[in-house]
Formats: sequence, C-alpha cells, structure tokens
Amino acid sequence: MQATVIHGPGDIRWEEAPDPVIMAPHQVIVRVVAGCVCGSDLWHYRGEAPAGRLPRTIGHECVGEVVELGADVRRIRLGDVVVVPFDQACGHCANCRAGVDSACVEAAFTQSGQGEYALVAHADYSLAVVADATPERLPALLALSDVMPTGWHAAVSARVAPGATVAVVGDGAVGLCGVLAAATLGAERVIALSRHEPRQAIARAFGATDVVAARGDEATAAVAELTGGIGADAVLECVGTAESMATAFAVARPGATVGFVGVPHGEFPIQRAFGRNIGLAGGVAPVTKYLPTLLEHVESGRIDPGLVFDAVLPMSDSAEAYRLMDERRAIKAMLLP
Amino acid sequence: MQATVIHGPGDIRWEEAPDPVIMAPHQVIVRVVAGCVCGSDLWHYRGEAPAGRLPRTIGHECVGEVVELGADVRRIRLGDVVVVPFDQACGHCANCRAGVDSACVEAAFTQSGQGEYALVAHADYSLAVVADATPERLPALLALSDVMPTGWHAAVSARVAPGATVAVVGDGAVGLCGVLAAATLGAERVIALSRHEPRQAIARAFGATDVVAARGDEATAAVAELTGGIGADAVLECVGTAESMATAFAVARPGATVGFVGVPHGEFPIQRAFGRNIGLAGGVAPVTKYLPTLLEHVESGRIDPGLVFDAVLPMSDSAEAYRLMDERRAIKAMLLP
Repeated sequence: MQATVIHGPGDIRWEEAPDPVIMAPHQVIVRVVAGCVCGSDLWHYRGEAPAGRLPRTIGHECVGEVVELGADVRRIRLGDVVVVPFDQACGHCANCRAGVDSACVEAAFTQSGQGEYALVAHADYSLAVVADATPERLPALLALSDVMPTGWHAAVSARVAPGATVAVVGDGAVGLCGVLAAATLGAERVIALSRHEPRQAIARAFGATDVVAARGDEATAAVAELTGGIGADAVLECVGTAESMATAFAVARPGATVGFVGVPHGEFPIQRAFGRNIGLAGGVAPVTKYLPTLLEHVESGRIDPGLVFDAVLPMSDSAEAYRLMDERRAIKAMLLP
Repeated sequence: MQATVIHGPGDIRWEEAPDPVIMAPHQVIVRVVAGCVCGSDLWHYRGEAPAGRLPRTIGHECVGEVVELGADVRRIRLGDVVVVPFDQACGHCANCRAGVDSACVEAAFTQSGQGEYALVAHADYSLAVVADATPERLPALLALSDVMPTGWHAAVSARVAPGATVAVVGDGAVGLCGVLAAATLGAERVIALSRHEPRQAIARAFGATDVVAARGDEATAAVAELTGGIGADAVLECVGTAESMATAFAVARPGATVGFVGVPHGEFPIQRAFGRNIGLAGGVAPVTKYLPTLLEHVESGRIDPGLVFDAVLPMSDSAEAYRLMDERRAIKAMLLP
C-alpha cells in the first residue's frame, strides 16, 4: 500500500509501505476513509520525542471502512464504517473494567492511520460503527478518534458540573474540544485562554463565553477578575508545558481539579496544588469509554467537533499537512484518500 | 506566660513570652490543657524550612479551656474545653463555603500551642467543644487538632470507598491516622507501608490488614502481589518526599487517586500520573470541616487516634519532646502543663 512514513525529524514521505496483515483474531483491517495529523505526531516531526525505529508508518487517528476481519470478530462486519480510537483496548482486563481502557494491559496503537490501510486491534470492543459517513459528517467523526474524547476526558477529569465556571488552557484542537466538552457538560461559563483570533472564533462557536488573550500572570489576573477573585471551579490543561500547567493551577480556585490531557513536559506546581487543595486528574484519554456517548452527540447534531479541521489535503500531500501544523498555519489537517 | 520558644535550629526553650492579647472580636484565649509537637515543627527545628522571625513561640496543635472571649463570640463560652484546629477559618468566605477552609481568605494559625496560653481566631466557627476531657480521652482529642483530620483528609481526597483496597505511604502520626481513616471509611483492605515494629503495631490496631516493610521498588512489588498485579484503589501519601510520592504513584492502580497531605519536598512523578491516569488530590487539611464528624467518632469510642502519642512530657520539657521526635524515639509527644 501507499502510506505516510516518517524517516526522521522533518522528513515525512508518502511512499510504498507493507500492507497490514491480521496477526491476532481480534484484529481487523480498515481502508482509511479519512486520517489526520495529531499534535503528538509533531513531537516526532520536530525531533522533540523519540519516534521509535525509523523509517515507520505514522498516524493514529482515522475513520475507516472494514475490509478484512479476524477470526474472532463478531460485532464488527465487513463494510462497516468505523471510528478508530487512537489506541484500542481489550475490554475485559481489570483496567478496562475499571473504566481506564487507555491503561489496558493489551493496549494497541494504530500505526498507519495516515496510509491507505490500517490494522486495528480489539475491534469488537474498541470500534464505533458509524450510521452516516457523508462528507459533511466526516470531520466530526474523525475528531472522535482522538481530540474530542481527549478534550472530553479533560472536562470529565476536572469534574465539570452543570453551572460551573471552567477555564481552558490551550487553544489547539484538544483545547478547543475541551471548550466544547465543558459547554456540553453544562458549564455556565467557559473561559478560553487563546491569543489567536481564528481559534478564538472556534472557541466561541464551541461555547466559550469569555476569551482571555493574555498569558502567564496577566492571564491569571484576567481569570481572577472574571471570577470575582475566586478562580475557576474546574480547569482543563490541554498543553502540557510547565507554563501552561502553572497557569492552570494559578486560575483554579481552592478545591478545584485540573483535568490534564496535554502530555506533560516540564515542572509541576506541586506547592500550589498542596497549599490551595487543587487536585490533578486525567492523562491518556480512555477513548473507547467515551465513544458511544460522543458518537450519539455527533449523530444527533448536538456537537460538531469537526470545526477543528481547518485544512483538508489529499493523503499523498501528508508532508504538507505536517508543515502547515508545524508552522501553526493550520489548527488540524484532515487527510483524504 | 511561660511558653515554648524556638530560637533557631535545634534551639527550643521553655521561657517567658508575651501573654496573648485579643486583637479582633472573633478571637478567644485558651489555657492550654494539652499541646504537642508536629512533624512540621521538626522542619524548623532541623533548619529544613524557614521558621520566620526568631525567636518566636511555637506549637499549633492543642486542646484548651476558654478563659477570655472576644466581643463577637457567641457560641463558645468561658470554661468550654475545645479542640483547637491548627488553623482557624472564618466560615463565610468563598473558600470556606466551598469546603476548603484551609484556604480561608482570613485563615489564622495557632502560635503558642506549646505554651500556657494560646490565641485562637474565628472561635465560633472553628472550635469544637468537648463533652469529656478526662485524661484518658485527652490524647484522642489532641489528635483532632491536626494529625487525625489530616489523615482523614488524605483518605477523603483519595476517595476511599467502602470495600476498597487502600495503601498508606508513611508511618508517622499522620500516616497512622490515615490507616485509621481508611478503615473507618469502610476500606476492606488497608496496606500500611512501615518498617518500624511499634508503628506497625499501631497501624494494625488502627485497622491495617497488611503491612509492607519494604521500600521503593520492593514495596511496589509487594503491593502488586497483594493486589493481584493491579495496584491499590486509593493511596494515601503522608510523607511528602520524592521517594514516597514515587512509591505512592507506583502502587496506585490506573484510575486511582493519590490523596496527599505530606508537605511536598521533591519531584512529582507526572509522567506516571499521566500515563496511568492516576490523580492527585489533597493538601492542607480543612480541619474545621471534619471536626464535628471526627469528634463524634472519638466521643462514641469508634476511633481512638490518641494511640499515636507514645510519649508524654511536662510542657516545660518541650525541648526534650523535640529531641525524642527528631531522633525518632517517639512517634508523637504530648505536652501537659
């Protein structure tokens, strides 16, 4: 098949790669209907995180049509169009049963979601079958593969409750989905921290009631002013840097929880957490747990997380998609066959 | 009055100090009936934390008899014997109303709890009036001033639920009270990490079902074995060092929460927290919130946290009490007038 392959920092190529092969009876192969580039792909692209043995195929988010079934697969059928969670879980280990499928003891990660075909594990438990995969619906479905459940996990972890005042740190696709999650979960006030006008516009479309364009201490002061000096009831940390984490804890009121989904890179403000009784919860999103609810919200038209895709390219131009996102010329790029 | 005064690291003296004076109408003065030395006093004693302007009186935990009332005090009466929380809260600010009285915007800290008299703020909201202050009951009451509510806060923050398996890191007075809290909150299994036999005995008296005497990786392996490889449902971190925090996160199952009440000194294992979805919650205990419940448990005989006091000295020997605790010859020393 043809697939997106990473050869090293800055070196993304659309080229011949091995066809995926079913190796375990719970797996299926999907023809990728839509894929996309993740913020975490950029760490490998930028050489900021180890990319594993190179060259290798890349891409862990996709919507696909099932074209081959492992011997034990029952629920999923040939021809189903499915949302593929970025990682797949067995559904029966202690961690899956405890609702933390992202810590599944047999977790498997999608490997070629930016290619023509992808191998998907634990198909019966992990995949969500789509009713309507028309082109208008496709971006929203694709967002269910990672960014929307991740933003949702931030909001759930931060214990966003109806009526709450929520602050969202980070205006990438995940942060924007966090705004949408907070609003959908009933937050009365959603304060988006964003300095970029196009992202502010999406945040408002997703339910942000206030936008704070400042950073650092100025952002903290602005949120304090918006909350009568108290701070936010819940905070979503969707970046992962030391600065964003410090801001998240600075804008949280005592007793609040910071829901964090940005892979942490840097110091953690533990003294602030201790002194103000501000909790931390979150991590790698258990996508499979959230998928049924989120798919229902998408199919009923209640949410449209597809707005985060502001660029669409043919999959063979994946290298350009990486450049657009790396240079912040696009929030998130969708790749079509 | 006579009081315990800290002059510098290692320099504790029983000597003349100014009598406390009511400066605000919500304050009262108590005659100290029993005081004690806190683990956090030892940081100042050891020069590990700034002790403020020296010399100064020291001691923030006590039981006292009310001997003078501020003009606005209504609920508390002259002659009441009261448990004095280590910090006192107003009860009406946003943080108090949200249940985080330790972040009260007018929080005040007891200053001379190891002296003859102590000044106490926000008396009507903060003090718990004791029905029975006989000598047998006194240690349990004194434990309500700090260590028992702090251990309770660790357990509540860790979301200990009936039937849970709980691991407790730290066998100081707070860790032991954490064991008691977990058992009282209905944990089915309480694993105490302790290498010291006298402390193990108290842990078992408080409800520990298992004791792990190992440290570090060996402790992690032992807890893994006790929990079928899964880890504890809730973990209480009652030390605050980098090592104890790492152990707490290592023994927690995915989705668990580490309740932390040891003042943090060192690195936080954020990658583990992220990768395994293990949350952190806790901080300075909101003692006032927990006092009514805990006093009821003590007065009904359901709990006796007074067992943590394994040394009793006259207050004038406070310097010796510090030595006993500094050299780990005592878990916690009670001081009597």
